[in-house]
Amino acid sequence: MSEPSGPVDTSGPIFEAHEGGKLESVPSKPLAGREDLSKLYTPGVAQVCRALAEDPSLSFRYTTRKNTVAVVTDGTAVLGLGDIGPVAALPVMEGKSVLFKHFGGVDSVPVCLEPGTIDDIVDAVVRIAPTYGGINLEDISAPRCFEIERRLKERLDIPVFHDDQHGTAIVALAALINAVKVTGQQLADLRVVIGGAGAAGVAIANILGRAGVREVIVCDSRGIIEPHRNDLVEHKHQLARTTNPLGLRGGLGDALVDADVYIGVSGGTVPESDLAKMKHDCIIFALANPDPEVHPDLARKYAKVVATGRSDFPNQINNVLAFPGLFRGALDAGAKQITEEMKLAAAEAIAALVDEPTAEEIVPSVFDERVAPAVAEAVVARA
Amino acid sequence: MSEPSGPVDTSGPIFEAHEGGKLESVPSKPLAGREDLSKLYTPGVAQVCRALAEDPSLSFRYTTRKNTVAVVTDGTAVLGLGDIGPVAALPVMEGKSVLFKHFGGVDSVPVCLEPGTIDDIVDAVVRIAPTYGGINLEDISAPRCFEIERRLKERLDIPVFHDDQHGTAIVALAALINAVKVTGQQLADLRVVIGGAGAAGVAIANILGRAGVREVIVCDSRGIIEPHRNDLVEHKHQLARTTNPLGLRGGLGDALVDADVYIGVSGGTVPESDLAKMKHDCIIFALANPDPEVHPDLARKYAKVVATGRSDFPNQINNVLAFPGLFRGALDAGAKQITEEMKLAAAEAIAALVDEPTAEEIVPSVFDERVAPAVAEAVVARA
Repeated sequence: MSEPSGPVDTSGPIFEAHEGGKLESVPSKPLAGREDLSKLYTPGVAQVCRALAEDPSLSFRYTTRKNTVAVVTDGTAVLGLGDIGPVAALPVMEGKSVLFKHFGGVDSVPVCLEPGTIDDIVDAVVRIAPTYGGINLEDISAPRCFEIERRLKERLDIPVFHDDQHGTAIVALAALINAVKVTGQQLADLRVVIGGAGAAGVAIANILGRAGVREVIVCDSRGIIEPHRNDLVEHKHQLARTTNPLGLRGGLGDALVDADVYIGVSGGTVPESDLAKMKHDCIIFALANPDPEVHPDLARKYAKVVATGRSDFPNQINNVLAFPGLFRGALDAGAKQITEEMKLAAAEAIAALVDEPTAEEIVPSVFDERVAPAVAEAVVARA
Repeated sequence: MSEPSGPVDTSGPIFEAHEGGKLESVPSKPLAGREDLSKLYTPGVAQVCRALAEDPSLSFRYTTRKNTVAVVTDGTAVLGLGDIGPVAALPVMEGKSVLFKHFGGVDSVPVCLEPGTIDDIVDAVVRIAPTYGGINLEDISAPRCFEIERRLKERLDIPVFHDDQHGTAIVALAALINAVKVTGQQLADLRVVIGGAGAAGVAIANILGRAGVREVIVCDSRGIIEPHRNDLVEHKHQLARTTNPLGLRGGLGDALVDADVYIGVSGGTVPESDLAKMKHDCIIFALANPDPEVHPDLARKYAKVVATGRSDFPNQINNVLAFPGLFRGALDAGAKQITEEMKLAAAEAIAALVDEPTAEEIVPSVFDERVAPAVAEAVVARA
């Protein structure tokens, strides 16, 4: 609902930095004259085409598939902006591709899809898949993203990874592994409350379960997700079955009573009175951007360890710690999928880069150059 | 029908040159630290997304759409190799992207599609189109390519251009414009026989008609295309209506009687006895690759001007003279389509770069750096 307005304001350094886009498609082989031309293009290229027709797996050696990931969106859940469409989502996808190359040495290209049904999106991605070595799904709205990812993984034999789910989950787990070192706890003994049952909330609940956390409680805007609720869509039904082992009922405030950990991925706000119900010296990850569910200053009144998604506070939980190394490893290993084991290994590798975790440092810096290679190595080892 | 064989032979310099593919996706803006990161990615990028959501046309300024063309194929008609599928076609598309960047400064990315119906291909391209500033269709089999291009042009408001049709046609016309300067003829007075009624043959017939050639006769493998034939598919029906004004019937040999020009885009072989029927000092373009329909040495017995698609003979008719500059111009002009006028202008611009055409020089070299800028300028002027 934008109000009637004049031309859009495009002044300032951010628009300057976006002038002409943020990516280039550059030849990686020299083209100095006729001889090069006849090798890279006709007639020489026909040799390579014939070989690939005979053995398509050679495409992972002699084409860009070896190192190229598509960053695919339909623009339905972009940043905190929501359903802004594929064209308006493109700057985010380009940014993602910049990060892929910068941190992981992975070539990647944005693919912004006209919106459509789940079938439409799945069919389109399957149709373009022969071009790529992997598919990074991005900013696709929940719950469609779950079904889209599930079906693509079924139909494709290249890695498919929805970063808003699993990238966030991997880094949140890495942070939690180190946070409990600071609080002196064990993952298995924690009561973790997740605020938000969208893409990130679901994936965090799942990875924490696999990492050994026994009590995970997920809340959506209507409260604790549990089997008696009659308003649950499919993916929440599943959460009701796999989480909340004590069968708690009620609101977020009820869930937080004696909780060890709160992980916010909802974009809402948690009242201070609810925080006060958590265990003393608890752990709070308030990951909404740009406005955390709990302001870090307030969180620190109750929590021993606080993390956010923001770069201007300590402990930034940022997907960029995971996805470049993860795809680097998957491509290097020729993996046909990114498995649950690889995700756990990635989280452990990120956590292990902080020698002695403190309340102010549970994750490495996003600019720590050891991160992507360490994640890649961990992924290759599980492939 | 490949015979049982061992591993595919991938030795030699051509495979070496293809190791890892031929393209990279590279950030075009510096990413030196947190400040850059917050401009190129979150939170800064949200400003640009919001502006684009309000005015999508800004995507042609602030994203890669400004300069990015998708090179789209389904792998059904690749080089002389035929229907080898999307994966085996990828090296050609990468090569094309290398040429786009090298000659036209156009960023381009391969998109290789799983085969499907015309609907499937059209729908897939429409769905991914928000990502790109233009669509270059490549190596899609005839007659499907005609309908696919027609429908995409209807549905999209970015340039759509099937290079196997129009790129070839533009360069063939450029060559003919200069060839008649050598023979001292006028385009309007020529009898031109085109051997081949596929993508290139149809497009050449069309562009010659628009350029003022009054008598164009197209032959397919069964002979002259004319209205009495009862074996014509739709695009040949149309050719029967728009070409062959004298209503000739018979085989290629009948068409060539007193012909001024033969343009081969068929891949067959023309018997010498048929060439002997052409006018004295005629013009022969034998464009099949790697084996021209008429070997240049033989052609020169009958023709004053001979051209081929090969780099090892004079007068190479190569699409690379057209497509980089054509898209350069269309993108620079913000053109919503590539019009017939732009194609004619491109042909004239290419021809004009040869100051004094001779039998040995009717087109500029593909490495002539003036070509793409001249074509771009001509296209911008008609946009």
